[in-house]
Amino acid sequence: MNNDVLGDIHIASRTVDKCHAIVQSVLEKRSLKTPGVLQAHQLDALDVEATKALITRIRAGIVINVGSSFLNMSVLAACMETGAAYIDTAIHEDPKKICETPPWYGNYEWTHRAECEKRGVTAILGAGFDPGVVNAYAALAEEQYFDTIDSIDIIDVNAGSHGRYFATNFDPEINFREFTGRVWTWQEKQWTANAMFEVKRTDDLPVVGEQTTYLTGHDEIHSLSANLDVPNIRFWMGFGEHYINVFTVLKNLGLLSEQPVTTAEGQEVVPLKVVKAVLPDPASLAPNYQGKTCIGDLIKGKKDGEDREVFIYNVCDHAENYAEVGSQAISYTAGVPPVAAAMLIATGEWDAKRMANIEQLPPRPFLELLSTMGLPTRIRDAEGDRDLTFPDEEAPRLPRRVAAGR
Amino acid sequence: MNNDVLGDIHIASRTVDKCHAIVQSVLEKRSLKTPGVLQAHQLDALDVEATKALITRIRAGIVINVGSSFLNMSVLAACMETGAAYIDTAIHEDPKKICETPPWYGNYEWTHRAECEKRGVTAILGAGFDPGVVNAYAALAEEQYFDTIDSIDIIDVNAGSHGRYFATNFDPEINFREFTGRVWTWQEKQWTANAMFEVKRTDDLPVVGEQTTYLTGHDEIHSLSANLDVPNIRFWMGFGEHYINVFTVLKNLGLLSEQPVTTAEGQEVVPLKVVKAVLPDPASLAPNYQGKTCIGDLIKGKKDGEDREVFIYNVCDHAENYAEVGSQAISYTAGVPPVAAAMLIATGEWDAKRMANIEQLPPRPFLELLSTMGLPTRIRDAEGDRDLTFPDEEAPRLPRRVAAGR
Repeated sequence: MNNDVLGDIHIASRTVDKCHAIVQSVLEKRSLKTPGVLQAHQLDALDVEATKALITRIRAGIVINVGSSFLNMSVLAACMETGAAYIDTAIHEDPKKICETPPWYGNYEWTHRAECEKRGVTAILGAGFDPGVVNAYAALAEEQYFDTIDSIDIIDVNAGSHGRYFATNFDPEINFREFTGRVWTWQEKQWTANAMFEVKRTDDLPVVGEQTTYLTGHDEIHSLSANLDVPNIRFWMGFGEHYINVFTVLKNLGLLSEQPVTTAEGQEVVPLKVVKAVLPDPASLAPNYQGKTCIGDLIKGKKDGEDREVFIYNVCDHAENYAEVGSQAISYTAGVPPVAAAMLIATGEWDAKRMANIEQLPPRPFLELLSTMGLPTRIRDAEGDRDLTFPDEEAPRLPRRVAAGR
Repeated sequence: MNNDVLGDIHIASRTVDKCHAIVQSVLEKRSLKTPGVLQAHQLDALDVEATKALITRIRAGIVINVGSSFLNMSVLAACMETGAAYIDTAIHEDPKKICETPPWYGNYEWTHRAECEKRGVTAILGAGFDPGVVNAYAALAEEQYFDTIDSIDIIDVNAGSHGRYFATNFDPEINFREFTGRVWTWQEKQWTANAMFEVKRTDDLPVVGEQTTYLTGHDEIHSLSANLDVPNIRFWMGFGEHYINVFTVLKNLGLLSEQPVTTAEGQEVVPLKVVKAVLPDPASLAPNYQGKTCIGDLIKGKKDGEDREVFIYNVCDHAENYAEVGSQAISYTAGVPPVAAAMLIATGEWDAKRMANIEQLPPRPFLELLSTMGLPTRIRDAEGDRDLTFPDEEAPRLPRRVAAGR
């Protein structure tokens, strides 16, 4: 839908059929804005040389890595060595480790910061919704709504229903990994550890109403705590009682373990892989997904000596997203922002020539572009609940228009 | 403990080490009443010829089959062909089928009734506690307490606690099979189907107090309905909310399936076997098991024109059973009765020379013998709650004493 800005588009995956399906879906929807290249490739992205060869062959200027969390370091290496800009949507993970010591970025991505700067390579980390858009909300709040910020509580609620007994919204292996270790949060300027489902809060949120969310470890805390002078940064994820119950049963029985067990018949099996095998394929949920997501930043601090509280957020509708792109809102909110980031690199506005987390880049062009791409930003504060429109009186800088492609 | 009556004792299993452990435990406890043979043998009991050879070689007069439910037909065949008496404690099952059409005995055991009678072979079916002792309670009630019986509700409550998050009291593969199909009961003289956990009742039971039990399919309904003229025969099993929750989660996710699934990595796995692998070994629960079981028959009908209601039952204590034999009460209540049945065959009182379910045999010698072996019978009715002592005024026949062995 944005190939006028982005130019040729190539899609690569270990399973090339998945790419062919996407290409076919785009062509069927007649979504290409201008005639252009949209091509599928087979690629094992853990193979750095193969990835470099593909980047060079198709002359890719920007690589969006939306593969599994285990690929980041390989794809980043291929970009650094070829000079292509790099974008991802989630932090790198070692498949053998769960919940490493904070800050997580310090274990992997940030070890390449100096090299990116030296080579002049743009690498934008965590450009999905959360992390990603919520980091831009935090940067906007700091720039425009506060003199000092005391706390940022990122709240992620999926009030949608897929109609199945139980399912995860993305790969169960990755999904459960988020909740089986310790929960790291930034409180009073230090790292604090809790157990999952130990701390919860209830908020009356826009559109989705009263929702209970649980203190959860999440990527963005690990960059926001380093990049913003904010003493309290927490992440809260909404879970229904049913989800927690199923998760608790599976975890307590040992069925979420990534360590193999041996059956009475002598077969070695990793329980988590069997759980994944019996759960619905997340992609299969989209056609019947109903309801909305609400994801935003509840920010408290001071402005002009007064206490201030704002909630900057987005609401998405599963069925509307499915009608538009064939995916539900969890995929939509994570998939659209990196495309916006790529467009901002293409236009030069975010072509930082260094490694950056989202809060280190100007938030307005990103949020304004997203509002034209199905992810409008709203704000709720003492003055009410409204669309964030970047009028001149609120925004000292003129909103930037997306220019033509390279 | 009863080799004065039973004579030589041989123990056979596919895994001979299990037999050696039992032999060692008996010798350590100095439990043999008189000096005699107690010997272990390796045997695949699905191999009828091997079983016949062992029976012949050791000159076994009585075979107690307490192997898995999948072995009954093979062991019965070996007994019929060698003339040894046969005893089991649970109905035959085909590993590939769950909850077959009633009456279950009609699908397997009873197809050999004529042959047993022709050969004069004693085959006593379902001689554990339930089925087994509860069938004798029903027969006693019919013989002594009622002119007509309207309903027999067999209630099985384990109010004990093993202190683990979740465990089954015997092989999870067999345990869960009882609850994953339809629940067959005998109501108004016909077979009625319900779903598991669809129908429940709450009773204030002796010793264990108020307990909720659920309508469950069970072996004894399938013989009692054929052998007694009673229009309503139901089985109720006690489950805590936690057990039901874990079971429901596993079942709904498909993790109790005996059909293989394929993991993302291409491995074929039977989910139920993985669940079994992560659950505690039932035998490991015994040392810490606390609390009591209460299993009995609540029987309603008429006697001398008056309505009458009796509850005939037994209460067992997990820790006491463990101290005596090294097993908890679930094993104790199932394991002691077939030994009593064997002793009654040895003394001739139950040497029926045909195939019989327990309710077709005289109940008093069995119940009286069990009361000397750790499983006393109690009765609760309008006259109070007391030990059943078979006094002459209640029992027209003199209690039979166990005679010396063959």
